[in-house]
Amino acid sequence: MHAYRSHTCAELNAGHVGQDVRLSGWVHRVRDHGGVLFIDLRDHYGITQVIADSDSPGFAALESVRAEWVVRIDGVVKGRDASLVNPKLPTGEIEVYAKGVTVLGASDELPMPVFGEVDYPEETRLTYRFLDLRREKLHRNMMLRSNVVRSIRNRMWAQGFNEFQTPIITASSPEGARDFLVPSRLHPGKFYALPQAPQQFKQLIMVAGFDRYFQIAPCFRDEDPRADRSPTDFYQLDLEMSFVEQADVFAAVQPVIQGIFEEFAPGKTVYPDWPLIAYRDALLWYGSDKPDLRNPIRMQIVSEHFAGSGFAIFAKLLETEGTQVRAIPAPGGGSRKFCDRMNAFAQKEGLPGMGYIFWRKAEDGSMEAAGPLAKNIGPERTEAIRQQLDLGEGDAAFFLGGKPEQFEAVAGRARNEIGRELGLTEENCFKFAWIVDFPMYEKDADGKIDFSHNPFSMPQGGLEALQGDPLQVYAYQYDLACNGYELISGGIRNHKPEIMFKAFELAGYPASEVEKRFGGMVKAFRYGAPPHGGCAAGIDRIVMLLAEEANIREVIMFPMNQRAEDLLMGAPSEPLNEQLRELRLRVVPKD
Amino acid sequence: MHAYRSHTCAELNAGHVGQDVRLSGWVHRVRDHGGVLFIDLRDHYGITQVIADSDSPGFAALESVRAEWVVRIDGVVKGRDASLVNPKLPTGEIEVYAKGVTVLGASDELPMPVFGEVDYPEETRLTYRFLDLRREKLHRNMMLRSNVVRSIRNRMWAQGFNEFQTPIITASSPEGARDFLVPSRLHPGKFYALPQAPQQFKQLIMVAGFDRYFQIAPCFRDEDPRADRSPTDFYQLDLEMSFVEQADVFAAVQPVIQGIFEEFAPGKTVYPDWPLIAYRDALLWYGSDKPDLRNPIRMQIVSEHFAGSGFAIFAKLLETEGTQVRAIPAPGGGSRKFCDRMNAFAQKEGLPGMGYIFWRKAEDGSMEAAGPLAKNIGPERTEAIRQQLDLGEGDAAFFLGGKPEQFEAVAGRARNEIGRELGLTEENCFKFAWIVDFPMYEKDADGKIDFSHNPFSMPQGGLEALQGDPLQVYAYQYDLACNGYELISGGIRNHKPEIMFKAFELAGYPASEVEKRFGGMVKAFRYGAPPHGGCAAGIDRIVMLLAEEANIREVIMFPMNQRAEDLLMGAPSEPLNEQLRELRLRVVPKD
Repeated sequence: MHAYRSHTCAELNAGHVGQDVRLSGWVHRVRDHGGVLFIDLRDHYGITQVIADSDSPGFAALESVRAEWVVRIDGVVKGRDASLVNPKLPTGEIEVYAKGVTVLGASDELPMPVFGEVDYPEETRLTYRFLDLRREKLHRNMMLRSNVVRSIRNRMWAQGFNEFQTPIITASSPEGARDFLVPSRLHPGKFYALPQAPQQFKQLIMVAGFDRYFQIAPCFRDEDPRADRSPTDFYQLDLEMSFVEQADVFAAVQPVIQGIFEEFAPGKTVYPDWPLIAYRDALLWYGSDKPDLRNPIRMQIVSEHFAGSGFAIFAKLLETEGTQVRAIPAPGGGSRKFCDRMNAFAQKEGLPGMGYIFWRKAEDGSMEAAGPLAKNIGPERTEAIRQQLDLGEGDAAFFLGGKPEQFEAVAGRARNEIGRELGLTEENCFKFAWIVDFPMYEKDADGKIDFSHNPFSMPQGGLEALQGDPLQVYAYQYDLACNGYELISGGIRNHKPEIMFKAFELAGYPASEVEKRFGGMVKAFRYGAPPHGGCAAGIDRIVMLLAEEANIREVIMFPMNQRAEDLLMGAPSEPLNEQLRELRLRVVPKD
Repeated sequence: MHAYRSHTCAELNAGHVGQDVRLSGWVHRVRDHGGVLFIDLRDHYGITQVIADSDSPGFAALESVRAEWVVRIDGVVKGRDASLVNPKLPTGEIEVYAKGVTVLGASDELPMPVFGEVDYPEETRLTYRFLDLRREKLHRNMMLRSNVVRSIRNRMWAQGFNEFQTPIITASSPEGARDFLVPSRLHPGKFYALPQAPQQFKQLIMVAGFDRYFQIAPCFRDEDPRADRSPTDFYQLDLEMSFVEQADVFAAVQPVIQGIFEEFAPGKTVYPDWPLIAYRDALLWYGSDKPDLRNPIRMQIVSEHFAGSGFAIFAKLLETEGTQVRAIPAPGGGSRKFCDRMNAFAQKEGLPGMGYIFWRKAEDGSMEAAGPLAKNIGPERTEAIRQQLDLGEGDAAFFLGGKPEQFEAVAGRARNEIGRELGLTEENCFKFAWIVDFPMYEKDADGKIDFSHNPFSMPQGGLEALQGDPLQVYAYQYDLACNGYELISGGIRNHKPEIMFKAFELAGYPASEVEKRFGGMVKAFRYGAPPHGGCAAGIDRIVMLLAEEANIREVIMFPMNQRAEDLLMGAPSEPLNEQLRELRLRVVPKD
């Protein structure tokens, strides 16, 4: 017989009754029923009930084992009485009567229990991560992550992509965040950087003639802590394709992501229709460039009904250029109580409030519009608004006015709130949309033109488009939104040096700066570069959505805490003097 | 029609004749046959011949394109005359008559050609890696690597392993090489380290209750340059299993490695019999702990025939304790010319020479032993040696004496040389062997006991074995040798804190030092650790063997040069003052 087990703890069933077996695993739970011991023995695969009584040869030894000890049990499989069968457990038909026990790994008293899924402080959980990971939920999350990554790989291969590894110790990459530096010992005073993403390398792979690249790529950003991101490294599904337009990238990616969500979110609807929504429309309709489309509410511009109206605040406001009034329709929200609650929500978000109109049954049985705004603008305009928004009795509409960029985000959050409160937001489903046509440039706070997103995207209209007003230029750049999160970001790349230099020039970067910062890639574009594009998808985010977890540390095997410390391994730590000497570095004392 | 291509450059054949098609790719080669242009158009998938004459609408444009420009060709598929069909090309039955051309990406004059596989200096190749990678051999190597890694993953999954990612920014790991350090910005003065291997993490994964882990894991060692290793990072197939003995690891690994070699070395024999050879025997028989078993020569101890013999050098030498005389049999090496050449080889390797005997046909037709040694020890001893080594007429034997550790390595190299010179070493095959029973400890130069290999391996015999002579203790530790290379290294781990502390104590490390250096893992072992073991296989090495490459840079997409510089991206480089300030670091000027 094998030294440790003849079967796993998930394998035995009624068909094994009478067999001599050997199991190894962790003592999940011990119950002592007065001379009869019940031990739930747990391994990676499942749980088997072990039973022992005073006739069992190993009884004394078994009596001494405690939770989380690792033991080997020799025993015989017995069928359970019909009344004791546990249909929830694959091994629920049987139990193993112990004939011998060997302690393989004892345990000190536990700092936190494994059985019971009790909530423990995160610091304890991270310090004893090896115990935390034994808990059912975390074990399941890690297996989910492993299986998701596996399935992504299979699906990418099926689409003709090849996985290539790109360097991890390399040069600073221009993703805009802070690099982690790695001092060079062979070249003291010089530093490598860990890649924020393999952006330049994947583009070089295209220039090198490989057609479809992907990688489950580790990315490194030295960012300040936040609950939903890792403070050091994270993983992306990174991909790039040659000789493609935007639609080709979408066609390659959708089956992969759609397939993953269908495979790992059983019982949830994964809508196959992925609309293309212009960035500008996403902000208008949903107040967000990563809209939650499970919520059917779509905002509309209603400025015309307020211009010159009796509602002085909006009428006056609309005289300033660049202002708008937008409505959030709220079907079913037609009560003063609800409208007041939403108004309070807006105030909590820092706005003076949200004007509203709601429609109710009047005493005479007809429909009437209520709320202060309706009175101010009069019945005609009120009715025109109702008709534009396609609302009726029992519904409401909320209004926000000003420069869109100043209220869009709050409007978006109000839309979420309204959808949730009114039960309009569909549950148990995933709704995707490609957000397209991002502006290439924006004005920063000082009125200076700068890239609004990725400087490496191809401007729509190419070189010619860059001759006109930069603020009118759109980029071949896109995001994939899912349920209010950004899952993917990508673009068709600017593969022509002359367009690239012009694009950077508009943003105030001279050619010398471009050469200095992105020299390797620009050089490559001078020797026959194919049109290419791609995207990157956040693995952690996908798994978080599938596992329904809000904290990224629930889907990473060994996460840092929020101060970027590894409490289990003790990182970061003081270096040895000898190490610093070899690197020719000195730590500057704190002021 | 698609913006860039209706077909790839490997797709068209006689069945497409008459179709209008669109192809995009690199101009591999242009031949101008007086008014008729032949262009080999290349993409990731293959090559298609494009033809144009002065009637072609794009003729003028086509005349201007040069090698490595990226172009789009619109044309019509024409069948080739039977005499012009190229059976070596999948598209050899057809050519595309150009009706239009669009330049997608022009190229400056090339610093090195892509067509022709000319050998260029490595610095040029690395500086223009994106061009180098377009060459057929490198393209093939990268695809091989990608496919090997893919197949490894599939085979590991098929064996029930799950892939988990372990941290890359973490604490120093005790693999014995130098760590790369990463300064922490949030904790100035403290440093992370990049893992030399995920050793502690994979053991923690076992303690956390996952049964079978693997990872294609990036590993980082700040090592001094060598031709056959990357100076910064490299990849391992890293795996670990719970509740296993050594034989279980072998049983899990062999089908994976065997399968990979069978899949990717078509036409070569992959021997399925993987013998277990004790470390001690490997050194005796083959002079190496990574023997090349394609060479059938096995060395033997022949001390008894020289002790007290007339060959004074060996006879005298054997009076000292710990000395031996070993023979390298050389079937077919029985000529003075060959024996002298081998003797010269030994001298080149720093030995005074190798004694030899060879057996030839005497003038009377009988067999006679020749060479100075035979004369010195006389016919009886010579004949005894011949019989022990099972040699005959036309064969030879070489002899080395002294303390085995002083001549074993040279003996191993002589064995290689003899096998190669005499054509004994089988070609076009892979022969594997597990090298087992490594000694746990060795005496260092000062006579101090230290670990001879991996301190985390379980000593055979457990705690009890550690009570006796440390030099007699073997470890459950093993290597996989293939054709003279070490492909895999691994062990059954020491999962019991009390044995671990004792093992370290014998090597002179107090408990406090163990706690300090491996605290995370030791802590984990106190809370229910399962018996576990595993190994790691070098991906680069496997691909090098399959691709028949001797230089690791031929199987890595973007390698560093031997000074650990990335010539394309310009790493390492001077940091910004601001970066150093944030990290509170100062570079110490050179003395």
